[in-house]
Amino acid sequence: MSKSNSDFSVVGKRIPKLDAAQKAMGRAEYIQDIKLPGMLYGRILYSKYAHANIVKIDTSKAVALSGVHAVLTGEDVPEKMKMGFIKDNPPIKKGKVCSFRDEVAAVAAISPEIAKKALDLIEIEYEEQIGIFDPEKAMEKDSPLVHGHLKSNVLKMPWDIHYGDVEKAEKESAFVVEDRFTTQWVTHCCLGTSGAIALFDANDNLTIHTNTQIPSLAQKDFLESLKAMGLENKRVRVIKPIIGGGFGSKLDTYAYEHIAILLAHKCRKPVKIAFDRVEEFKATSTRQPTIIYIKQGCDKNGKLTFRDMRMVLDNGAHTSWGATTPSVMLMPISSLYRVENVKYVAKCVYTNNTYSQAMRGYGNPQATFAIESSMDMLAEKAGIDRIEIRRINRNQSGDETPQGLKITTCGLEECIDAVEKELKFDGKNEKGVGTGIASLIHVGGGARIYGSDGCGAILKMDDYGKVDVFTGGTDMGQGLDNIIAQIVAEELGLLAEDINVVHSDTDICPWDVGAHASRSTFVAGNAALGAAKKVKQKIQKFASKLFDVPAEKIEFKDKLVFVPGDQEKSMPLGKLLRKAHFSPGGTMLMAEYFYDPDNQNMGKELKGNMSMTYSFGAHGAKVKVDEETGKVEVLEYVAAHDVGRAINPLLLEGQVYGGVVMGLGYALTEEVTVKDGEIMNANFRDYKLFTAKDAVKIKAPIIETDDKDGPFGAKGIGEPGCVPTAPAIANAIYDAVGVRIKDLPITPEKVLVALKKKND
Amino acid sequence: MSKSNSDFSVVGKRIPKLDAAQKAMGRAEYIQDIKLPGMLYGRILYSKYAHANIVKIDTSKAVALSGVHAVLTGEDVPEKMKMGFIKDNPPIKKGKVCSFRDEVAAVAAISPEIAKKALDLIEIEYEEQIGIFDPEKAMEKDSPLVHGHLKSNVLKMPWDIHYGDVEKAEKESAFVVEDRFTTQWVTHCCLGTSGAIALFDANDNLTIHTNTQIPSLAQKDFLESLKAMGLENKRVRVIKPIIGGGFGSKLDTYAYEHIAILLAHKCRKPVKIAFDRVEEFKATSTRQPTIIYIKQGCDKNGKLTFRDMRMVLDNGAHTSWGATTPSVMLMPISSLYRVENVKYVAKCVYTNNTYSQAMRGYGNPQATFAIESSMDMLAEKAGIDRIEIRRINRNQSGDETPQGLKITTCGLEECIDAVEKELKFDGKNEKGVGTGIASLIHVGGGARIYGSDGCGAILKMDDYGKVDVFTGGTDMGQGLDNIIAQIVAEELGLLAEDINVVHSDTDICPWDVGAHASRSTFVAGNAALGAAKKVKQKIQKFASKLFDVPAEKIEFKDKLVFVPGDQEKSMPLGKLLRKAHFSPGGTMLMAEYFYDPDNQNMGKELKGNMSMTYSFGAHGAKVKVDEETGKVEVLEYVAAHDVGRAINPLLLEGQVYGGVVMGLGYALTEEVTVKDGEIMNANFRDYKLFTAKDAVKIKAPIIETDDKDGPFGAKGIGEPGCVPTAPAIANAIYDAVGVRIKDLPITPEKVLVALKKKND
Repeated sequence: MSKSNSDFSVVGKRIPKLDAAQKAMGRAEYIQDIKLPGMLYGRILYSKYAHANIVKIDTSKAVALSGVHAVLTGEDVPEKMKMGFIKDNPPIKKGKVCSFRDEVAAVAAISPEIAKKALDLIEIEYEEQIGIFDPEKAMEKDSPLVHGHLKSNVLKMPWDIHYGDVEKAEKESAFVVEDRFTTQWVTHCCLGTSGAIALFDANDNLTIHTNTQIPSLAQKDFLESLKAMGLENKRVRVIKPIIGGGFGSKLDTYAYEHIAILLAHKCRKPVKIAFDRVEEFKATSTRQPTIIYIKQGCDKNGKLTFRDMRMVLDNGAHTSWGATTPSVMLMPISSLYRVENVKYVAKCVYTNNTYSQAMRGYGNPQATFAIESSMDMLAEKAGIDRIEIRRINRNQSGDETPQGLKITTCGLEECIDAVEKELKFDGKNEKGVGTGIASLIHVGGGARIYGSDGCGAILKMDDYGKVDVFTGGTDMGQGLDNIIAQIVAEELGLLAEDINVVHSDTDICPWDVGAHASRSTFVAGNAALGAAKKVKQKIQKFASKLFDVPAEKIEFKDKLVFVPGDQEKSMPLGKLLRKAHFSPGGTMLMAEYFYDPDNQNMGKELKGNMSMTYSFGAHGAKVKVDEETGKVEVLEYVAAHDVGRAINPLLLEGQVYGGVVMGLGYALTEEVTVKDGEIMNANFRDYKLFTAKDAVKIKAPIIETDDKDGPFGAKGIGEPGCVPTAPAIANAIYDAVGVRIKDLPITPEKVLVALKKKND
Repeated sequence: MSKSNSDFSVVGKRIPKLDAAQKAMGRAEYIQDIKLPGMLYGRILYSKYAHANIVKIDTSKAVALSGVHAVLTGEDVPEKMKMGFIKDNPPIKKGKVCSFRDEVAAVAAISPEIAKKALDLIEIEYEEQIGIFDPEKAMEKDSPLVHGHLKSNVLKMPWDIHYGDVEKAEKESAFVVEDRFTTQWVTHCCLGTSGAIALFDANDNLTIHTNTQIPSLAQKDFLESLKAMGLENKRVRVIKPIIGGGFGSKLDTYAYEHIAILLAHKCRKPVKIAFDRVEEFKATSTRQPTIIYIKQGCDKNGKLTFRDMRMVLDNGAHTSWGATTPSVMLMPISSLYRVENVKYVAKCVYTNNTYSQAMRGYGNPQATFAIESSMDMLAEKAGIDRIEIRRINRNQSGDETPQGLKITTCGLEECIDAVEKELKFDGKNEKGVGTGIASLIHVGGGARIYGSDGCGAILKMDDYGKVDVFTGGTDMGQGLDNIIAQIVAEELGLLAEDINVVHSDTDICPWDVGAHASRSTFVAGNAALGAAKKVKQKIQKFASKLFDVPAEKIEFKDKLVFVPGDQEKSMPLGKLLRKAHFSPGGTMLMAEYFYDPDNQNMGKELKGNMSMTYSFGAHGAKVKVDEETGKVEVLEYVAAHDVGRAINPLLLEGQVYGGVVMGLGYALTEEVTVKDGEIMNANFRDYKLFTAKDAVKIKAPIIETDDKDGPFGAKGIGEPGCVPTAPAIANAIYDAVGVRIKDLPITPEKVLVALKKKND
């Protein structure tokens, strides 16, 4: 490592979240808290059927209700107003509904209560159609079609990949395992429910306050909606208030946002639509269920020879970013461990279920569940220690994987070591107790899934050494403002509290592709660092004249600008800034910087180095299985990650803890239960959200590899915490009681059934 | 002129104010409209006496009132918390009051009504002292002292200036006139009354929404108040809401702002203090009354030989920027017309009256009233035509005045011509009708009265050619956002509506010294232009590669980037921006620029070129005097100005019309009547505000001299409209009925008395 943490003043420090006190004191303003003058309240009416034709809608009673300002149906939505990744989803449906979640009408009224009452007064006559809810059945030739105008329920997607020669490699393998895994619907369970407030100014420019992870892309979506409404050449300002969690749920725009826009324009007043918890469960998106077929093999020494995977994803009735998760699944499939021959086919299939969205890990947890379960099975078959097989096949610095991922820094081995150090993997645990391990690879240096993977930063300093940074990056609770503040403070020799980070307002903040793919620390961090370096150079240039030394000799620390070793040549930064400001031809210090990483879009060959660097990790679990009840208790959990550099270990641990707890829920309890397209458990209790009460003791060893491209060496680490949790648990259960559960979540019932089957 | 208006697409166009519709629809949010969660309402108790000792204050009943959260007296104000130019004014007074306006207590309560009730419950015992209300008497040796710890009521100010040799010049003059003029108290009469809302975050950082013209300097003041409160190293964010007029009234921070801060900190809640109209009259500041002694002479050809002036200014009980107006008075005294020998003494004198503040023109209207009245008297004495004497002595391009002002462009002659063209100056008007003329010089290119006269701008473009500009400049209704938008749009080949101007938020906007001295168009305009040019160069550089031509050949117009004469080499700006963004190593276009004009602070010798350029003007009035009632009717008014370049003639005319109407009120009707320190007419009717109903037909010929340093040649023109109005009217009255009124306002009573005296 080129620099150790002791070289830093602010980076690497456990600085509590800068907005913690505001939030703890109840002063943070969430969308629920914002009230604009004259604001109306919108509500949405959803379909009564999973699949039906709309024969007739009568809104007359709703329109007549006192306090109602507007009622909209599909007829009021401009033809070209469509949402989603392939723009197949109008915000209110016309003529036909394809899922229970489909919007059929909306109202704006002077209170939420009146709006609700108005919804109840809308009379709709439906003609029910046969629904299709199983993606594998939906793929069959004679299956009913979710969208009649398409010839198949299978989306046209390019995921049919073959690197190397899998057939040949399989033949030459010493050991091969093959299996089928399935994962369930889960949802993000953001504690802050969704909402938006739209308002137009006198010139038909739109301001929308909305819970989003993608202010710049949402701005584009809304501009397109405005165009569809006939409002050309207008401005859209997206302001993201403080939000209570994102986890990928806010990577697309939602019907409620576009409906708020339509209502606000019709009423000429601000219109707020805010979800309650039931609506949050039913009308926001999920991590889609997957059916995963995996076959992989190794030679007699345990070296992986090939990996052949096939995925079927339930897309739901419409298409959002969930349909693009196969591209992230490709990453672990092609690149978790060294494996030269890879085959991968993925199919996203329309059903009459709720449509899916991005969620933390973005396909990686699903794929890794299969891969890492299968790795243990392969190790057992080959008679190789399960830690050893991972060491043998570990990724290494300098590798280029079949997909074309270029591994720069790689701490996977150290992560495996860290897990092994904490838990016993010798099979000598007490009865019913077992340990499991699973590794991960994830993008850690951006992810080019859009034309630009960039982020801008603007920085200005005042006369005293305080800094305002406008970042394109979006904080959604993860603490990006701390990270930016610490990076800028480190570069300029200031304290984190000297840095004010302004984010989430498209009028003010430069463009950014969004808070996804664990990219914010790396990309927004590099953008802010770039701006700080420019400002630093300007200060050095000014100080260079003042001190009569070359600019590069001038350093910054503890709010002092100085030439090391020359006590005469030193000045408090504030004084220097004032000198620069109040001299003839004076200036204030400002800079802007746009950072677009040098990563690649996957081209037609579906190859490319999608990220500047990759994060690695290994998770270890120690569980106890109650053989009478099937209940799994997690006794210990170790989550070791190669993070490049921990800008703030406290926040990093927070990310890891949160990720692991989310992963444990995924592994053990959480599931959106869906019956014929209808969500049956729209509440935290029946959803079985893993809560603080369920959380276990987690150790989170931090491996620092000082990535050459990361800001101060950092990689992104937002998602990895939840990626290999389920297989680590599944592997531990197998170690404990010898049953392998291949279907998430691993409920006591499934364990009991498996135990019964094993003991029969 | 190097460029004519037809060379421009956006500059020179009559584009209505960009915020006009918002304001007309009642959607603009003034301080009165802003309500923050949990907000309390503050009110201030003022002194019952012009001069008294405070013997005892009992706040117990107020504290006990239900709904009251805090009661403050002078005892609660930190010792070092002082306001004003020489920091002589604590926001709440302790022990002693020196004017009726002195604050003695303040409360915060859950409603304004309860706050008012609480004030009524505060019991104060005073011991009245002798007050001094006449500044000339206050200068006498045995006068009572306003501030006992000072040895004199006369402020220590440097205004004792002698350029050339006045004594010699006087002896050599062919004609000399000498007189005494007086001007009254007037006040700004902003339609939006004053107010502020202060709130602290959990870390004791302050946000203050306040009606100010100086966000950056106010931030500094508030930082100092925080320091005085023991809150070191904190952040202050100043947000200026939309305000209903400034006119100089908001160039300093006021007691109510600091009191709101104290209350907000004590209550840990947002506290709003908003003035009603009576409070606005009584507790905001005035244009100070002046007593002006002037002597000037000319040779037998009418060429000015010397000017000798002495000013006495009523400073009131405390010191704000009003005390610095002598430095602006110096400008016309030294530099209106060519005059080589100048003597000038000014004294600001403490009295127990209300303290004075900056007001549009900043001393220039007072000085010009005397100078231009005296010019007519001198012309008459010398037997020279009053237009002719002005032409003889007119400033000319290339001059350097005794004070050191460097006259770059000068359209004074054209202004005089324009006035002469519109009105008859041959003395042949009908009986009781007369014409008058008066000229002006004013700073038109900034005014260095502070360490920096600079302004910053940050500019960012989106993917479609829309621009956000963050300016340090402060709009207070004058339309700065239009000016910035037009300048940036012109430079980048866009429409004004493509430019979003963000101002008046210190977190977002770069530093600026404030909206004063008619500097915003020039200084903020140049800053925005500088940023636009930087962005333009970046686009040119990118397009240069694309088109394979040198960057400087690439032009911008109508949202097109093109090489003139080569139709192949042309691309819509939006498309080019997207190309730049979505290419490898892509970037968004951003730039920052700080412009500090190359003007000078007056040093110890009280010489220096305080502005980069100067605006000139000549006003002409045609009045009819009713000899029975003394009433003066303004029949016609011409206000010709050398504006360099009219960026927006519509807004420019608005500035001139508004200035002239303000000047007419100053000339004819408006006065704050003060009796023994007490304001007697705190309402628009008794103050006799010149209203729309009283406005006269005004012609505003625009003289364009294309200033070399101005943005697209523009000079500042915010203040001049009200500068020479009073002498133009006074001169017209003299022309009409042969009486010269030397005391403003020229009420019917004064005219009648003068007519009677003349006819006796």
